[in-house]
Amino acid sequence: MRIDTLAIVGVGLLGGSVALAARTRGVARRVVGVDRDSDALARACQSGVIDATASLADAAGEANLVVVCTPVGTIASFVLHAAAHCRPGTILTDVGSTKANILAEVEAGTLPDGVHFAGSHPLAGSEKQGSLHSRDDLFTDRLVVVTPARSTPDGVIDHLRAFWSALGSRVEVMDAEQHDRVVALTSHLPHLAASALASLTPENWLDFTGTGFRDTTRIACGGVEVWSSILRANRQAILLALDRLQSRLEDFESALVNNDRKGLEQLLWEGKNVRDKLSP
Amino acid sequence: MRIDTLAIVGVGLLGGSVALAARTRGVARRVVGVDRDSDALARACQSGVIDATASLADAAGEANLVVVCTPVGTIASFVLHAAAHCRPGTILTDVGSTKANILAEVEAGTLPDGVHFAGSHPLAGSEKQGSLHSRDDLFTDRLVVVTPARSTPDGVIDHLRAFWSALGSRVEVMDAEQHDRVVALTSHLPHLAASALASLTPENWLDFTGTGFRDTTRIACGGVEVWSSILRANRQAILLALDRLQSRLEDFESALVNNDRKGLEQLLWEGKNVRDKLSP
Repeated sequence: MRIDTLAIVGVGLLGGSVALAARTRGVARRVVGVDRDSDALARACQSGVIDATASLADAAGEANLVVVCTPVGTIASFVLHAAAHCRPGTILTDVGSTKANILAEVEAGTLPDGVHFAGSHPLAGSEKQGSLHSRDDLFTDRLVVVTPARSTPDGVIDHLRAFWSALGSRVEVMDAEQHDRVVALTSHLPHLAASALASLTPENWLDFTGTGFRDTTRIACGGVEVWSSILRANRQAILLALDRLQSRLEDFESALVNNDRKGLEQLLWEGKNVRDKLSP
Repeated sequence: MRIDTLAIVGVGLLGGSVALAARTRGVARRVVGVDRDSDALARACQSGVIDATASLADAAGEANLVVVCTPVGTIASFVLHAAAHCRPGTILTDVGSTKANILAEVEAGTLPDGVHFAGSHPLAGSEKQGSLHSRDDLFTDRLVVVTPARSTPDGVIDHLRAFWSALGSRVEVMDAEQHDRVVALTSHLPHLAASALASLTPENWLDFTGTGFRDTTRIACGGVEVWSSILRANRQAILLALDRLQSRLEDFESALVNNDRKGLEQLLWEGKNVRDKLSP
């Protein structure tokens, strides 16, 4: 797997890490960065995350693969804008945490003949922001979910599979709606719970927190705009997941009100049984 | 700070770590372990966590300091049993995560003249269990909250402060009820939320979890009996904390239902603002 020119639209932590991984592993000869924040773009170039900077139109025109790494609410718009400047044969994808809304918006627009889009979601990230925190191993041994559009040719899926594999990831191809239901529970709901837990804690009680509190609330440090965008894009699936969490917390509440040892231990076992199946 | 004989009642992860830290730092000449599980006790002795094993009565009779490290529901009973065998001048404490219930139970019983108890809660731990996971640095740079009884002489508080400081901890003296309100929010509620989040996840979706899910649910691996005991011992304060979490989740729910970007961002900011004040 080797492409000539990779365009990264949105050079933050994720975009920068795609760029770095592709350069370090020799997957792209040249990585061109696009970002509305010209200072951030200059920093990414100076620090060697990308090879060059360009306008969206210029980068799209010379790219073989365009990876859009902007907040989820803006991805489809950047995909459609970039696609208009792409040569036939160019593939576009993204790294957004939600997939159905992006696919629907892209499908509602027009891609030039021979230009194709399919979604990607690397299950990797950090609560840090900005390209200076980029890591060339961010995707190593991580899962990337690829979500095709109805019209996506198999060859495009194969190409994206080869690209992410070359960055060290495992790839799973999945329906976009199913992806969104899964990550609502495994990623978006935990973020919301971590944020809620953190916000309840008075500042002068932070001294009385241990590693448990730190672990459980760590992701609450994530970027507010990024996460507001994700939560709104996937709000239907998240509302269903939230309903299940609330119902589970009511079970805990009943068990506590009734001082029900057996009931409490059953609830705790069910959580432990699931979590014990993952590495610490 | 140096004592002759330290008795550890309940040689699990916490008890073993108190023993190891006291031996490594030369705080106790001799550490005697007591445990109903004779196999676990033999292992702790063979692996050098403790110097010797004894019955509760014998250990209490020769100890200068007795640290009860059993599940919170049983601590007061062990304190009262041990105290009956202690010589005047002996101090008893514990490492339980709740304090008011233990203090009330101990105060409802009888301590021999010159034998004193005050509670301790080291804000340190691990989701691992058993003395073989003991660490001599578990308390280093951690906070230990000491909660005196009404009758506890100042000299006893000073002695406990010196003991925990000698193990590398910072010490804060606090009212037991206030301690319980604080840890309900900073420790017990996060445990309950982590457990609830983990339990909602179907096993075949675990592949789609990243570091966020792992961090947020890590403490759900904690021992079920240990945590059931903690949650029940502090259930009044936890129910108040749980009520606040549920209300916060309802705020998130409303913001999602109304697709209220500003409201959602305000909620996320409040969580991030608190969590950003802690180290990652």
